[in-house]
Amino acid sequence: MSNENQVKHWHVTYNNIHNLIRKNCPKIAVDFNPDLLVAIGIGFFPARVMRTFLREATTKKTLQIQAIGLSLYEPVEGVAEEKIAEEVIRTQWLGAEAGKMLLGKRVLIVDEVDDTRKTLSYALTELKRDVETELLNHPEADRDALRASTKFGIFVVHNKNKPKLAALPEGTTYYSGEEVDDVWLDYPWESTDIEEHDRLAALDVENAASATKKDV
Amino acid sequence: MSNENQVKHWHVTYNNIHNLIRKNCPKIAVDFNPDLLVAIGIGFFPARVMRTFLREATTKKTLQIQAIGLSLYEPVEGVAEEKIAEEVIRTQWLGAEAGKMLLGKRVLIVDEVDDTRKTLSYALTELKRDVETELLNHPEADRDALRASTKFGIFVVHNKNKPKLAALPEGTTYYSGEEVDDVWLDYPWESTDIEEHDRLAALDVENAASATKKDV
Repeated sequence: MSNENQVKHWHVTYNNIHNLIRKNCPKIAVDFNPDLLVAIGIGFFPARVMRTFLREATTKKTLQIQAIGLSLYEPVEGVAEEKIAEEVIRTQWLGAEAGKMLLGKRVLIVDEVDDTRKTLSYALTELKRDVETELLNHPEADRDALRASTKFGIFVVHNKNKPKLAALPEGTTYYSGEEVDDVWLDYPWESTDIEEHDRLAALDVENAASATKKDV
Repeated sequence: MSNENQVKHWHVTYNNIHNLIRKNCPKIAVDFNPDLLVAIGIGFFPARVMRTFLREATTKKTLQIQAIGLSLYEPVEGVAEEKIAEEVIRTQWLGAEAGKMLLGKRVLIVDEVDDTRKTLSYALTELKRDVETELLNHPEADRDALRASTKFGIFVVHNKNKPKLAALPEGTTYYSGEEVDDVWLDYPWESTDIEEHDRLAALDVENAASATKKDV
């Protein structure tokens, strides 16, 4: 039996994701009220849906979405878990004006999943570094205020409840569409048969409901 | 009655898009066989689905997706149509190494819709310019061969059959998931009620089928 068979799968439909964003946007619009979205990879899709609901919820403004590309590189198979030490590789970043674009903004980073938190931690650290670089173009006396006016938040569609391998800087606002166990998330864009995928997603929900009933 | 009410709407579901890509990928894998995807805005979503089906169809390779951001800026309302002269604004582009990344590759540009063709024309022209800039780093004797080995193609989910306001460079490979009339396309990521959206999409299909029947 392969290892994958032992991991519980959870199939996620496009509409599931759409509705998780719908549910969370009113709160995000009031609490954080982003004025720039930075999407990591396929995070562009939830970010685009979020733009629709944030426009609806508050200011009618059309948020810009900037894309960054990051991937986790696992150098060697079969090494002890604490040694896996994945490396984050940048495949795309903001342009040369990154710091200028971020400074003074409420920036919401959007990703589909928070698994080990390594990618998110990297993204935040590097975006903050861009802000620091930009601050050097401003008089020293203004920097603290400018830094304080720059806010970073995170929205992930799913957060896996599992030990995280990286931390987020203190004061980072954090939203997840849904908290899930450490399951194997089957996202719809990875499916080669979307009708079968949707059927399995409905079955997952059914099974979860009957498991809850048995618990009672 | 507003002008929008006179335009025929066509509601597109997430699964529609997924299946249009599924249908077209075997051909694209054989004909063009891209080795880099460049997504324009929400084109990231179809590009990500495409990566799944291209991996399935041929080489098992995981294509990289690069994102660019373009928007059409219409400066003044109420001017004569031929004077609208939308300007394409870059909101994001490939990094400093753009030309190096493109040179010698089969690059497929992915967008959700080909409306006036202005955005696609701009994207292609500028990507080709990046290649020309990179060619200057190579000996003059090699440039023609390197240029010829760099291929550009386009995939759009929907192509609207209407007069286009810009042309594509000769020799550009072109794929559309589906050819549509000059209708108002309602994409799912713009919907604030996805169940109602799906209901309207089913109704659109039903109405189109009964209209076809009447024609017979």
